Amino acid sequence: MIELTRRYELPAAHILASEELSEEENRRIFGKCANPGGHGHNYGVEVTVSGPIDSQTGQIIEHDRLDALFDEVIRERLSHRFLNDLDLFAGRVPTAEVIAEVVHGELALALASSGDARLARVRLVETPNNDCEYGDAR
Amino acid sequence: MIELTRRYELPAAHILASEELSEEENRRIFGKCANPGGHGHNYGVEVTVSGPIDSQTGQIIEHDRLDALFDEVIRERLSHRFLNDLDLFAGRVPTAEVIAEVVHGELALALASSGDARLARVRLVETPNNDCEYGDAR
Amino acid sequence: MIELTRRYELPAAHILASEELSEEENRRIFGKCANPGGHGHNYGVEVTVSGPIDSQTGQIIEHDRLDALFDEVIRERLSHRFLNDLDLFAGRVPTAEVIAEVVHGELALALASSGDARLARVRLVETPNNDCEYGDAR
Amino acid sequence: MIELTRRYELPAAHILASEELSEEENRRIFGKCANPGGHGHNYGVEVTVSGPIDSQTGQIIEHDRLDALFDEVIRERLSHRFLNDLDLFAGRVPTAEVIAEVVHGELALALASSGDARLARVRLVETPNNDCEYGDAR
Amino acid sequence: MIELTRRYELPAAHILASEELSEEENRRIFGKCANPGGHGHNYGVEVTVSGPIDSQTGQIIEHDRLDALFDEVIRERLSHRFLNDLDLFAGRVPTAEVIAEVVHGELALALASSGDARLARVRLVETPNNDCEYGDAR
Amino acid sequence: MIELTRRYELPAAHILASEELSEEENRRIFGKCANPGGHGHNYGVEVTVSGPIDSQTGQIIEHDRLDALFDEVIRERLSHRFLNDLDLFAGRVPTAEVIAEVVHGELALALASSGDARLARVRLVETPNNDCEYGDAR
Repeated sequence: MIELTRRYELPAAHILASEELSEEENRRIFGKCANPGGHGHNYGVEVTVSGPIDSQTGQIIEHDRLDALFDEVIRERLSHRFLNDLDLFAGRVPTAEVIAEVVHGELALALASSGDARLARVRLVETPNNDCEYGDAR
Repeated sequence: MIELTRRYELPAAHILASEELSEEENRRIFGKCANPGGHGHNYGVEVTVSGPIDSQTGQIIEHDRLDALFDEVIRERLSHRFLNDLDLFAGRVPTAEVIAEVVHGELALALASSGDARLARVRLVETPNNDCEYGDAR
Repeated sequence: MIELTRRYELPAAHILASEELSEEENRRIFGKCANPGGHGHNYGVEVTVSGPIDSQTGQIIEHDRLDALFDEVIRERLSHRFLNDLDLFAGRVPTAEVIAEVVHGELALALASSGDARLARVRLVETPNNDCEYGDAR
Repeated sequence: MIELTRRYELPAAHILASEELSEEENRRIFGKCANPGGHGHNYGVEVTVSGPIDSQTGQIIEHDRLDALFDEVIRERLSHRFLNDLDLFAGRVPTAEVIAEVVHGELALALASSGDARLARVRLVETPNNDCEYGDAR
Repeated sequence: MIELTRRYELPAAHILASEELSEEENRRIFGKCANPGGHGHNYGVEVTVSGPIDSQTGQIIEHDRLDALFDEVIRERLSHRFLNDLDLFAGRVPTAEVIAEVVHGELALALASSGDARLARVRLVETPNNDCEYGDAR
Repeated sequence: MIELTRRYELPAAHILASEELSEEENRRIFGKCANPGGHGHNYGVEVTVSGPIDSQTGQIIEHDRLDALFDEVIRERLSHRFLNDLDLFAGRVPTAEVIAEVVHGELALALASSGDARLARVRLVETPNNDCEYGDAR
């Protein structure tokens, strides 16, 4: 197994509340995170790719390519946004779990079509004490 | 000099844009931070107090008292909120500088009236790479 | 694979020395960690659970439930304690490995009986440079 | 102003309780930190020295000399110890404040007699969210 | 699964450029990292071993043994060196991927011949935002 | 007092050895840091500016301006370089102290001529356990 992980910062805002639940239920499940004005995080996104080491460059993927792909597919759409408003999260509560799944889906698609290394996992770090990992078993 | 620093986490959302400026000017000055939906941070608040060490307890201030004071004066009002909406920031852009000044003002007042240790400084950590410190010279 | 990890702090004290070994042997194996007065750490406990994302809440488990469970099963018994004195570690040396195994056992049991998400792994962080992970292969 | 700071790790144990106070008072003031078995921390000690930059070496002090001094004066006596038992803390509660003061006193003396750079300050980091700084105003 | 991870620091220098590529190609692929003078990192090396917990010591491996092995096999040869000059990297570009593979190979061999715990994985942390992991699937 | 601090990363390489000293003396003073091939660090540079908060923007200085200034004056010249080779360090050993002094001098000059906020201090973080601060007393 050989994997490369690059980490990106992604400040954004969200509200944790389901439209299918009453205000009381949202408050009970999500606590302060259901506050109507919203709040935010400096999300960390750790992107892990796997693949053979290129014998000439010594790399699984060129850093600039992965960075450019992340910028195009994720940063442009999520950074400094109110996540609940985005089409990507339509009908879903943008929890760490859901953001991880969505980011993984978008990145996996983009990497597959670019012919580069394969996406192994995405870790979404909401706070230093809460994160979510989505992807292949290691 | 003897100082005690305690650190608190404070997730919240904000938009960096001045009502006195045009959209173009806000965009030029604040970049993505002026995005209309807002975004957020896990703000860190480092509260530094100074005063003599109590000979019996070996402490400048009891931790529970400082924590309770912070909860009452700051956390209850700022945590998990959209800062631009709060009276505390009326007419101001809630930058790291302004939040540090406001938090310092509220805490200094509360500490003064409680007869406890004196507030020396407040450091507002917006991201690991951007923070603002407000208070006495050291 | 989708996993949620929450991290908790757990200050405690221990001595690394086996009752079955001589003082010289303990000193050779554990070095300063065998000092009779004991010493301590700010243990970090990273609890990883797995399970389907609830379609309504967007979560694997409600944060408050996992936190309450951790408080009841682990924090109440280990936090601010001298670990060698606890029944949980009777006859064992409370190394990072052993603490990880014990914490995993207690939490897995509690999660299983509460019908919530499944415990995948426990990482016990003794110092920033020494940690131990116990649980399922990823 | 030119200052060099070096950081050292110092695992140790303590109980926060004053012999002059009743069990109830200790419990009220120190909470779980008064638990009889004791608990511990990975204390961080940040030692800041000031002085002119030596024109030949480009340094305020040789790193090995400061490290050796710290080992001799502090690590040998405090690391992996139960602080309440040490003569250095006789009659005092080993809080972050008191440890910072004691470490500063011992290091200042040792540096003064060695003719090296002057000790400016000592920061005692008890947990990532609680630290104490003792020394000169900056 | 039970694993112990210990982390070591390893300051070193390197240039990212392949002798098989032109200066323009190296510049395009590696950017500033191809600068002729070289640059460096405080590499972090996280060594993960697995094996049964010894019933007497409560450990997978004695810390001093793993540390001594790391010092002998890795630190002595890589720490404070210019990696491109070393035989270990002859004909290869010392990227995070390649360093992880080389460190893993050397440590796995040394652990195997010492009869101790088995090497599971090596994580090479080049910067806080770029790391590479080499070894067994978890 | 109100201060803003922004942190930048700056990977570079250096050798700690004085041309005025013998190889033995350099080895005694700088240890492994005198190794001929050189080694490197992910230097962190924390730039602290002070000045009044602009009433319209809520900022001491626009982030983009400080970042652009840092890029032009420091990053372009030091990042991914072998510091001993640079004119900026001619005749000096590029220790943390010397780098801090040089970076401070260059930035102070640039800020003064741009009419922006005043440079208060520069902290050069060589490793997590060794840093140097140069500038005004706080």
